[in-house]
Amino acid sequence: MPQQTSKKHLTPITTLKQIFGDSLVTSKAICHQHGNDESFHEPHAPDAVLFAKSKQDVVKAVDVCREYKTPIIAYGTGTSLEGHVAALQGGLCIDVSNMNQILAVHHEDLQCVVEPGVRRIQLNEYLRDTGLFFPIDPGADASLGGMVSTRASGTNAVRYGTMRDNILSLEVVLANGTIIKTAKRAKKSSAGYDLTSLMIGAEGTLGIITEITLKLYGIPETIASAVCTFPSVDDAVNTTITTIQSGIAIARIELLDEKSIEAVNSYSNLALQVAPTLFMEFHGSPESVKTQSEAVGEIAAGLGGSNFRWTTNTEERSKLWQARHDAAYACKALRKNCEFMATDVCVPISRLAECIVETQKDIQDSDLLAPILGHVGDGNFHLVLLVDPTDPSEVGRAQDLHERMIHRALSMDGTCTGEHGIGYGKIDYLEAELGQATSAMQLIKQALDPDNIMNPGKILKIS
Amino acid sequence: MPQQTSKKHLTPITTLKQIFGDSLVTSKAICHQHGNDESFHEPHAPDAVLFAKSKQDVVKAVDVCREYKTPIIAYGTGTSLEGHVAALQGGLCIDVSNMNQILAVHHEDLQCVVEPGVRRIQLNEYLRDTGLFFPIDPGADASLGGMVSTRASGTNAVRYGTMRDNILSLEVVLANGTIIKTAKRAKKSSAGYDLTSLMIGAEGTLGIITEITLKLYGIPETIASAVCTFPSVDDAVNTTITTIQSGIAIARIELLDEKSIEAVNSYSNLALQVAPTLFMEFHGSPESVKTQSEAVGEIAAGLGGSNFRWTTNTEERSKLWQARHDAAYACKALRKNCEFMATDVCVPISRLAECIVETQKDIQDSDLLAPILGHVGDGNFHLVLLVDPTDPSEVGRAQDLHERMIHRALSMDGTCTGEHGIGYGKIDYLEAELGQATSAMQLIKQALDPDNIMNPGKILKIS
Repeated sequence: MPQQTSKKHLTPITTLKQIFGDSLVTSKAICHQHGNDESFHEPHAPDAVLFAKSKQDVVKAVDVCREYKTPIIAYGTGTSLEGHVAALQGGLCIDVSNMNQILAVHHEDLQCVVEPGVRRIQLNEYLRDTGLFFPIDPGADASLGGMVSTRASGTNAVRYGTMRDNILSLEVVLANGTIIKTAKRAKKSSAGYDLTSLMIGAEGTLGIITEITLKLYGIPETIASAVCTFPSVDDAVNTTITTIQSGIAIARIELLDEKSIEAVNSYSNLALQVAPTLFMEFHGSPESVKTQSEAVGEIAAGLGGSNFRWTTNTEERSKLWQARHDAAYACKALRKNCEFMATDVCVPISRLAECIVETQKDIQDSDLLAPILGHVGDGNFHLVLLVDPTDPSEVGRAQDLHERMIHRALSMDGTCTGEHGIGYGKIDYLEAELGQATSAMQLIKQALDPDNIMNPGKILKIS
Repeated sequence: MPQQTSKKHLTPITTLKQIFGDSLVTSKAICHQHGNDESFHEPHAPDAVLFAKSKQDVVKAVDVCREYKTPIIAYGTGTSLEGHVAALQGGLCIDVSNMNQILAVHHEDLQCVVEPGVRRIQLNEYLRDTGLFFPIDPGADASLGGMVSTRASGTNAVRYGTMRDNILSLEVVLANGTIIKTAKRAKKSSAGYDLTSLMIGAEGTLGIITEITLKLYGIPETIASAVCTFPSVDDAVNTTITTIQSGIAIARIELLDEKSIEAVNSYSNLALQVAPTLFMEFHGSPESVKTQSEAVGEIAAGLGGSNFRWTTNTEERSKLWQARHDAAYACKALRKNCEFMATDVCVPISRLAECIVETQKDIQDSDLLAPILGHVGDGNFHLVLLVDPTDPSEVGRAQDLHERMIHRALSMDGTCTGEHGIGYGKIDYLEAELGQATSAMQLIKQALDPDNIMNPGKILKIS
């Protein structure tokens, strides 16, 4: 076993180099890139990056790393938002982006099997001719492996659920080098512990995902989009609550606050009224889409909504949702040379308006610029803090605001992260949220990864 | 610590008696009843039954049992089907049926919080005036705690999902005596390992559930039911596949084979044509229910379906679904003095017709009587073997048939149990189904319950 010195990882890397040759890269630029995600958290480069080609590569790498107790961090596209890919203790990054084959489409079962490096847009382009699609859309063109690992969701979750609801089975390489398949392809099962769900959202701390069986859906016959402005966040949220309680299967319902609307108007060349606004989408037959749109229009009107417009025009719809997808960049463009701190919380929808309004007041009182965007149907919203990194006072106020927002969400029986995950950015908040349950998580982590080689320093602090 | 003798459990029971007084019962009749479920598996009585009144009672009992390494088996209503409540090694049964309070209804959040002894029908009666309901319906009037623990589903799962999809959070007493809360009430979260899902379907082997936060749904404005007969199982299954692929959100779609129809005709005084038959249900607005019913009628007609009738008449609908719920008893009534072996498997829907047809042929070749009933939208079906327990040859043929059916389902990428669970009845099949994954389950079990006191002998064989 190697000495605990700065040369700690030299021996395993040499061993890995002998096995993998050119697939193992140690160049500074590649290592730096792989230790960095899209978050504001400090990047940490791994000692080497393995561009894995197969599950056998993953097993071989895990076997070497276990022998040397070398950290292993899986990498898909690096679009995570809580420092998930940062190699906090160095070690080996396993880049799975070349494991990008769509292995099977089971049309009648509404399922497909993919490697973890397959990206969301790649999958839907591949599926288009089959009439099927995979609905989970976190915004970024993320890898499916990464989406599984962070329990991602996004704009469509209000109708189609999150990654938790859309994975049937996973193949995972455990720290002990065994390959497990967590479930068969049956749509449901009561056979044993739900290891599929355990691995979803585990952020690579319990194993490396090498195959994913996903649920698919028929591409809707008709898609309509709608926009509506409201006098207050409260009215927009109440419209959402009433819509969902009415059983309307709305596909997307997104809240943008005044600041976000300013940002998208400017960035995406729109002329929306600057007010709390809902962007919506409806999926179904032409008649059902019409019924849904009109029903929501009526609900909105009853709650002070104005300018409700719905359309099945593809161009208008694409423009609207492109603007929503670009909203984070639009927010960033509100202020030059700023650092961009994206964070999310999620609360029971009955507390959402209160949580957003209190947060908006806190932003104002803190003299900060921070548009709010929300997957309001799920009670989930994002804060996009735009901070001058050269102003320590402003950075401090931003950090304090962030912390207060999380504790506000927790006090409302909410979670410190609805869809971004814990990574190392929110590791301090997990225990505040779940208390003793984190001890049970520790026991599971220790049982499956006794040497703490799987993405150490993420989700849990291992003492 | 006590000696490993037949008096092994005497000391802990005495200790428990001192703590719980009359709430601890050791009478033979009560113990026998609590070691028995509705399955054909041999019952095993516990040494005592604690009628727990609170989570504090559960913690105290777990603390004593841990000290003495005494097995603990949770009990709700005893309606499980794989020997889940059998006290294979004696020990303490914790009956939670008195923990039956509905603690909160969060109307705007479509959630409620209940104790584990609350029963399905009790909950829906309580909710009726709120306009909300909990859709999971396994047939039996089971306790919610039991439904969580077996990952139950039933007729509504094709639209509303299973227990896996409808639990937001659990409070659980672990073997080490700590009470954990697995999640907050936010609709979604990416915060740490999904302990909620891990506990769902764990059959009381990882802890005792003391509180459940459930998802609720609006009671549909209109409910329609429909019946349709088919020339073959294949046609009925293809109608189901096409319906689901068309995006029709059918609420229930149940297959009854010829033998089941004979049974329900006789038992429930119906006059259905003896042929493979679909019972269906649609939820929605009056228009949407009409659209859905007519669309499925057209699909069925194109696949040879005949006598398609749909109705919103409550009496007709109730009669139909009462017949479906009574189908197991109806099957039993086909043969006097028989033993009733109920079992279930689940396969990808593309393989369902093949799996059922092969099983029907096998039943015929084995000279057995065994109607088939299926939650066909999920690829899940039940075999109701009617066996003369005094005929060893017939019992043997039934066991062989059962085993072949399970291996047939596994060979089709299916599961040995879609909704009944493993218990001790299917413990030998779990490894056949999931291989190495069961070793990972063993590691988790050992980490959370190192002394194997939580429902030992269920799901996993602990060596």
